[in-house]
Amino acid sequence: MTELHAYALGGMREVVAGDRLDELIAAALAEQGLQVRDGDILVVTSKIVSKAEGRTVRADDREAAITDETVRVVATRAHPGGVTRIVENRLGIVQAAAGVDASNTPVGTVLLLPVDPDASARQLAAHLRERLGVRVGILISDTLGRAWREGQTDQAIGSAGVRVVDDLRGGVDTFGQTLEVTQMAVADEIASAADLVKGKASGMPVALLRGLSHLVVETLETPARALTRTGPTDMFRLGSDEAHAEGHAEGYAEGFEAGYLAGLAAMP
Amino acid sequence: MTELHAYALGGMREVVAGDRLDELIAAALAEQGLQVRDGDILVVTSKIVSKAEGRTVRADDREAAITDETVRVVATRAHPGGVTRIVENRLGIVQAAAGVDASNTPVGTVLLLPVDPDASARQLAAHLRERLGVRVGILISDTLGRAWREGQTDQAIGSAGVRVVDDLRGGVDTFGQTLEVTQMAVADEIASAADLVKGKASGMPVALLRGLSHLVVETLETPARALTRTGPTDMFRLGSDEAHAEGHAEGYAEGFEAGYLAGLAAMP
Repeated sequence: MTELHAYALGGMREVVAGDRLDELIAAALAEQGLQVRDGDILVVTSKIVSKAEGRTVRADDREAAITDETVRVVATRAHPGGVTRIVENRLGIVQAAAGVDASNTPVGTVLLLPVDPDASARQLAAHLRERLGVRVGILISDTLGRAWREGQTDQAIGSAGVRVVDDLRGGVDTFGQTLEVTQMAVADEIASAADLVKGKASGMPVALLRGLSHLVVETLETPARALTRTGPTDMFRLGSDEAHAEGHAEGYAEGFEAGYLAGLAAMP
Repeated sequence: MTELHAYALGGMREVVAGDRLDELIAAALAEQGLQVRDGDILVVTSKIVSKAEGRTVRADDREAAITDETVRVVATRAHPGGVTRIVENRLGIVQAAAGVDASNTPVGTVLLLPVDPDASARQLAAHLRERLGVRVGILISDTLGRAWREGQTDQAIGSAGVRVVDDLRGGVDTFGQTLEVTQMAVADEIASAADLVKGKASGMPVALLRGLSHLVVETLETPARALTRTGPTDMFRLGSDEAHAEGHAEGYAEGFEAGYLAGLAAMP
């Protein structure tokens, strides 16, 4: 029987800049009587990684912070509450507000994403593997919206020691036919599973997942960055309105020039 | 401690048209010694729902089947293996090939999605609740791609008795600030968690999830259809290339007309 168990880690105090997350997590595990085993995965909310790394900025700089984190604007939409900016941030992640977050932070401040969540995951994994003496995998999660679907889900923005994609291409299904297109983004599925126990307002920013040891590997070089899709294979590099407007402007200029010449030529 | 346990259900035979899934699932649960409890959720791969409902069509009709299932083409992309069509299907789901599936089906056939996965979920939940005497929730899952991210994840396309969105808006975070935008698509997160134990080629199309009873409700009217986003709030109704081309054609026509008049007027 294939089984997965997920436990939310309670008993962690509020994280502040300079904290060693491996110490806080190890203490919370011990307090809760949870023994980490070889092949376990710890999913850590990006928020506490950012807090430990001192990524807090003053709230009145929020719009400027979003702009600073933005590599490319994908789409914007005005609504009664303001303007939503869907952007690609420096990490290659397309999300609203570039991941700049105002919830679960002290009043008057907002939180930026970690500078390099894959590096943060590697460091945390290395420290915890050494401290606990077992091969643990680390994922760092964030809450992302999706095109064409309501609501958000937690997904992986940092990874160390966890295979982020389970590539089933070339495998064989139960009828002996080759599976051609399936590459499961298992790191995102794990982050989603962890959110179901961690929750958002509960003060439990870490989950321990057991039963996925086939996805835990020796190397820490398993970047979640590999899950981001930008460039030529991105069919949605711009929102429809933005792409339409860009095409319209180009078409108008070309049409005007052609029309002008045709108008000239039409004169007797 | 918040905990989630997920078990893959083994021992189910191949599903054929006309099968009663509640009977097959109850038998597999009994064989595996799994007692369903109040508040448990069963996640069922859409594939076996389609098979039970006789949604198999001949493989040489695959492109026609995709066209029949399509309400609206969002984007198409030619590649060496053929053309990928990202479309909105009759269920409001935007996905590649309208969900028409060629894996894990008998050679020479493809499988359409259930006619109404929410109705299928309601029927299955009603039968299982009666048979087992406990309030169980049902999700029907399918594998979907995503914009801006590599790989696929399992998401919920049918639901009965499971709250599909956990609306945290208006709640309060650990700093006493109101959570403003977070609506977690928990049904999608549950489908993803279930995929981690079910897998794709393993012949285990059902998972039992325990620990989420706060999301299981008495009513069976909890449609996964509510998770689809189409219409005015969809910022990605067309692929960027398609929207650009549409804008270009409109712009060219307008520009040509304006240019033609300007050309006429420019003559002495």
